[in-house]
Amino acid sequence: MKFQVHSELKYNVLFPSTLIFNIHALRTQNQTVLEETLATDPYIRLEEFTSTHSPNRFVRLEIGEPLNFTISYKATVDANCKIIQHQERALSISLAKLDGDVIPFLFPSRYCQSDKLQRFANKLIGNQENTYLMVLAITDWIHQNVEYISGSTDSHTSALDTITERSGVCRDFAHLGIALCRALSIPARYFTGYAFKLFPPDFHACFEAYIGGQWIVFDATKLVPLNGMIKIASGRDAADAAVASIFGNVVCTSILVGCDAAEENFDPIYYNKNDMRFVSY
Amino acid sequence: MKFQVHSELKYNVLFPSTLIFNIHALRTQNQTVLEETLATDPYIRLEEFTSTHSPNRFVRLEIGEPLNFTISYKATVDANCKIIQHQERALSISLAKLDGDVIPFLFPSRYCQSDKLQRFANKLIGNQENTYLMVLAITDWIHQNVEYISGSTDSHTSALDTITERSGVCRDFAHLGIALCRALSIPARYFTGYAFKLFPPDFHACFEAYIGGQWIVFDATKLVPLNGMIKIASGRDAADAAVASIFGNVVCTSILVGCDAAEENFDPIYYNKNDMRFVSY
Amino acid sequence: MKFQVHSELKYNVLFPSTLIFNIHALRTQNQTVLEETLATDPYIRLEEFTSTHSPNRFVRLEIGEPLNFTISYKATVDANCKIIQHQERALSISLAKLDGDVIPFLFPSRYCQSDKLQRFANKLIGNQENTYLMVLAITDWIHQNVEYISGSTDSHTSALDTITERSGVCRDFAHLGIALCRALSIPARYFTGYAFKLFPPDFHACFEAYIGGQWIVFDATKLVPLNGMIKIASGRDAADAAVASIFGNVVCTSILVGCDAAEENFDPIYYNKNDMRFVSY
Amino acid sequence: MKFQVHSELKYNVLFPSTLIFNIHALRTQNQTVLEETLATDPYIRLEEFTSTHSPNRFVRLEIGEPLNFTISYKATVDANCKIIQHQERALSISLAKLDGDVIPFLFPSRYCQSDKLQRFANKLIGNQENTYLMVLAITDWIHQNVEYISGSTDSHTSALDTITERSGVCRDFAHLGIALCRALSIPARYFTGYAFKLFPPDFHACFEAYIGGQWIVFDATKLVPLNGMIKIASGRDAADAAVASIFGNVVCTSILVGCDAAEENFDPIYYNKNDMRFVSY
Repeated sequence: MKFQVHSELKYNVLFPSTLIFNIHALRTQNQTVLEETLATDPYIRLEEFTSTHSPNRFVRLEIGEPLNFTISYKATVDANCKIIQHQERALSISLAKLDGDVIPFLFPSRYCQSDKLQRFANKLIGNQENTYLMVLAITDWIHQNVEYISGSTDSHTSALDTITERSGVCRDFAHLGIALCRALSIPARYFTGYAFKLFPPDFHACFEAYIGGQWIVFDATKLVPLNGMIKIASGRDAADAAVASIFGNVVCTSILVGCDAAEENFDPIYYNKNDMRFVSY
Repeated sequence: MKFQVHSELKYNVLFPSTLIFNIHALRTQNQTVLEETLATDPYIRLEEFTSTHSPNRFVRLEIGEPLNFTISYKATVDANCKIIQHQERALSISLAKLDGDVIPFLFPSRYCQSDKLQRFANKLIGNQENTYLMVLAITDWIHQNVEYISGSTDSHTSALDTITERSGVCRDFAHLGIALCRALSIPARYFTGYAFKLFPPDFHACFEAYIGGQWIVFDATKLVPLNGMIKIASGRDAADAAVASIFGNVVCTSILVGCDAAEENFDPIYYNKNDMRFVSY
Repeated sequence: MKFQVHSELKYNVLFPSTLIFNIHALRTQNQTVLEETLATDPYIRLEEFTSTHSPNRFVRLEIGEPLNFTISYKATVDANCKIIQHQERALSISLAKLDGDVIPFLFPSRYCQSDKLQRFANKLIGNQENTYLMVLAITDWIHQNVEYISGSTDSHTSALDTITERSGVCRDFAHLGIALCRALSIPARYFTGYAFKLFPPDFHACFEAYIGGQWIVFDATKLVPLNGMIKIASGRDAADAAVASIFGNVVCTSILVGCDAAEENFDPIYYNKNDMRFVSY
Repeated sequence: MKFQVHSELKYNVLFPSTLIFNIHALRTQNQTVLEETLATDPYIRLEEFTSTHSPNRFVRLEIGEPLNFTISYKATVDANCKIIQHQERALSISLAKLDGDVIPFLFPSRYCQSDKLQRFANKLIGNQENTYLMVLAITDWIHQNVEYISGSTDSHTSALDTITERSGVCRDFAHLGIALCRALSIPARYFTGYAFKLFPPDFHACFEAYIGGQWIVFDATKLVPLNGMIKIASGRDAADAAVASIFGNVVCTSILVGCDAAEENFDPIYYNKNDMRFVSY
C-alpha cells in the first residue's frame, strides 16, 4: 500500500542553536521509501545520522545566528505492515527467553514511570493471561478514562501526571500505555509516525508491545486505523523519538503534516474483540 | 593495576520470578578480566547475555518456585583507566559533531529529568565555558549541598527529589550530576562499579560526562579515588544499569561487596583545581 | 454509650525540642469527657491550648535537653454520635448558602490536592446527584482500589501519590477521600479518633463530608463501625490534626492505643446501600 | 497615608457556577476603609461573608445561567502600616509560647510543602539566629535564584516546583518564602493586596512571617515598597486567599487593577541591611 506523506515545520531561531529532527520515514523490511526529499529554506547544511541503538533517521542542523527557517519533508512510501491473526495459544514470551535488545524496554523511562505503577497495573488487568488481551484492556481503559484534549499537557507531562489529571494528547496516551505494559513485565516502546485519516492532521504517536516475539502496535487514542501509519521512529519514550529536539533558543511557529493514500482499496484495521487481527510494523 | 573484586548477594524468592544481574566486571580496552567465577548456591541455570545497545554483561536466572539462594561473583581484573592531562584549550564538542551513539545521553531519563532543570543548571554554572570545569562545579555543588545519608532514599528517588530533599546515596548523587550535565547539553551517563577504599564496602555508582570526545568519570560523593574503580556498566541511569532487576516477588536479604588492590603503589586521583588530571574508563 | 480510651507514646528527645500533641478526646455536644488524666514520665511541664480555628485540644511540651519520656492519656468518654436516617430528598447544600466557616474545607490542602483531581473525580462519580451516594461511591472506590498495607507510606504521602501507588494506611485513605470530595465541591475534612474494634489497635483517621448541613463521617478503610469512634480532632488534613507535631530532633519509640466499650449493647453501623443510616460526631 | 484602589474583573460564565471573590480591602487596626463600592454589570445578587477563621472579606455570587459579567471594586483606604525599628535583641518567639492561633501557620499547606524542605532550608540559612535576618536571607535567596517570568507557572504550581524550575510570579515567590520559613519553624502566611507602584499593575502577593509577636511583611519579588500595600487578605497560601475561587465552568477574560497614592510624601521602605525598619500590617 503506497502513501504520500509530507511535513513542513517553521522555526524562529533566536540564538545560535542545534536542532535534531526525526521526521524521515523509517526504512524497514515492511516499509520501503520509494522517493523522498528533504529541504530547508533558506538553505542550511544538514547532516543525516543514525546510531547503533536504533534505525531511526535523524537530521542535524547547526545554526550559528538568529534566523527564521522552514524544513520540509516529502516522501512516497510503500508500507506493508504485517497482519497477525491472533491465536488462542500462549502468547507471551517468558522473560527468561527475551532477547537482550528487548530488555531495556522493560525498564522505566523519563515519561513512563512503570516502577511506580505495578500495583495500579495489576489491579487494572487482574487475572488476564493472554498478552494481546492484556494490552487491549490497557488501551481500552486509557481510551475510556483519559480525555483527548489538545493543549492540555506539555513536553514535561508524564504517565504519572496523566493518571491523576486524566487528559492529554496522543503522546500522553502512548506514555501511559507503555508505562502500564512495563509495569506488567511486557516490553513496550514509543512509536511515532505519519497517520492516514488523522484529524486534525499532525504527527502521531502510539506504542508497540512485544508479544509472541513481535512488536505489535497499539493506539489508545483510537483515532486512526492501526494499519494506516508510516513509521518514523521507535524509542523508549518521547525523549528518544521526539520529532524535534532543540538545543538552544528556538520557537516553533508552524507545523503542517499530511498523509494521503496513493492507492485505493485500503482496508482499515481497528482492534476489537470481534476482529482479532493485529498489526506489526 | 590489578584488583580483586567480589560480591555475594542473597535473595529470598517468594514466587516464580526472573532476576537479571549486572555484576560482572566489564571487558574494555582499558580493563581486562584476568579470571572470574560466577556461582549460585544452590545451583541454578544461568544465562549470560548482552545487547547491541551496550557492552554491559547481564546474567539472567529464572526461578520457578520459592527458594533462598546466593549468587557470588569473584574476579581478578587488570584495570588501567586512562589518565587525561587537562588542557586549557577548547574542550567541549559541538553538538553538531557529536556521534549519533552519544546523543541519547543528552536526553532526559527516568531518574534524570534534565528537561526540567535547564534554568537551575544555568543559574548554577553561569558563564563557565570550559566543560571540565563546568562538570567539576556541578560535582562540587552536589557534594556541598546534598548530604550522604544511608537509607534516606529508595529506588524511586529521582534527581528532582534530590534537589528539594538534599539527601541521598551514591545513586542519587550520580543521577543529579547526570541531570545537571544534560540540562547544559553535556552528554552524561550512569556508571556502576566495584570501588577501592569505599567504606562501608558496597557497589558504587557515579557518572561519566562526554568531554573532548571521551567519557570522563566524575563522582560527587568524593568517597573513592577516581582511578580506583572496576567498571561494571554504564547506562542512561539506574534503570539501565541496576545491579539487580527483579521481575517477581523477591526479597534481598544480604549484600557483601569487596574490592582489594592486588598490587602496591596505587596513586589515587581526586579531582581538584590543583591536580588537573582526569580519568576515563 | 461509654468508652474507655487510652494512649501511651514514648519518645527519645535527642536535642532541645518542642512537641505538640493532639490526643485528648474532644468535648462536643455529642461527646462528653467524664474523666480524663494526662501524665508524663518523668514529669514535664505541659501547656494545654486551643485556637479560635477549631475546638481541637492541644498539649505543648518544651524539652530543653536530651531525654526519654512517656506521655499517657486515659479517659472515660460518653460518646453519642448522631444517627441520621437518610432521606431521598435533595441533600446537598448549594455553595451559595454554605456557611463561611465551611468554605475553607472546599479548598485544596497539603495532602489533598483537589485542584488537580476534578476530571478524575467527575469520571469516577459521573451523574450521581445525591451527595450521600456520591461520597459512598468515593469510599467504595477507594476501598476496592487501594490496598491497606502498613508501612507502605510515610508522613509526606499525599492523595496524588495514593492514586498512582494504590497502597496506604488510614491516613492515606482519608486524604484521598477528602481530595475527591473537594474536587466535586463537597466540603470535606480530616477526622482523627480512638476507634472501637480497630485491629491492630492504633489511632485512627477517616474523614467527614458536609452534607445537608451536617458533618457526616465516612471511612474508606471499612475497618471500624462508623459509630464506634471517640473523636480527637478535625482539620484540613493530617497537617492540621496530627497526633504529634514535632519541632526538633525526636524519635518516637513506641505507641500503644486502646479503646474499649464500657457498656454493652453496642449496635455497630457500617454504611451500605441497605442500611441508610449515617453518623455525625 | 491614603490610597485609592480599584479592580475590574470580567468573566464569561459558561454553565451555572458559584464564584467567591476576595478583593475588598481589609478592615484592621492599621487600615481604615474610608469609602468603597462594589458593583456588578449586569446586576447580580451578591452576598458578603466572613468566617471565624479570618477577617478576610469574601463576596459570593451564584450564577444560574450562561452570562458575561463584570465585577468592579473601588475604595479609598487610609493605610498606616506599623513601622518597626529592628532591635538587636533576641527576636524569635519560642514555639513553647506561640499563641494557638499562630500555630497552624507552622504546618505545611497545599502550595507550601515545608515538611519536605527542612534540610534545604537549614543548608540555606545555616547558623543565623536573628529571625529578621533569617527571613531577609530567604527573600534575598529567592530574589537571586528565581526568575520573575509572567506566565511561566499556573494555579497548580507549588514551592517544590519553584525550587527546581526557578521561575514564577509573585504568588510563587510568596509560596516559596512561606515554605522555607515554616521549614525553619517560623510561622508564615500568604498576603494579598493592592500594591502602589507595581508595574505592570495587578493584584500582588507576598508573605508575612511571625517575628517578635508580630506579623512582619516580606516580599521576595522586591517589586514594591513594603509599606505601599493595601492588604486584602492573609491565609495559609493561595488556596485560602485567592482573589477569585471558581466552582463551575467560568473563563476570566480581563483583569484591571490600580493603586494610587491619594496623598504626597510617601516614604518608601525597601528592606536591606542598612535600613533596618520592618513593616507590619
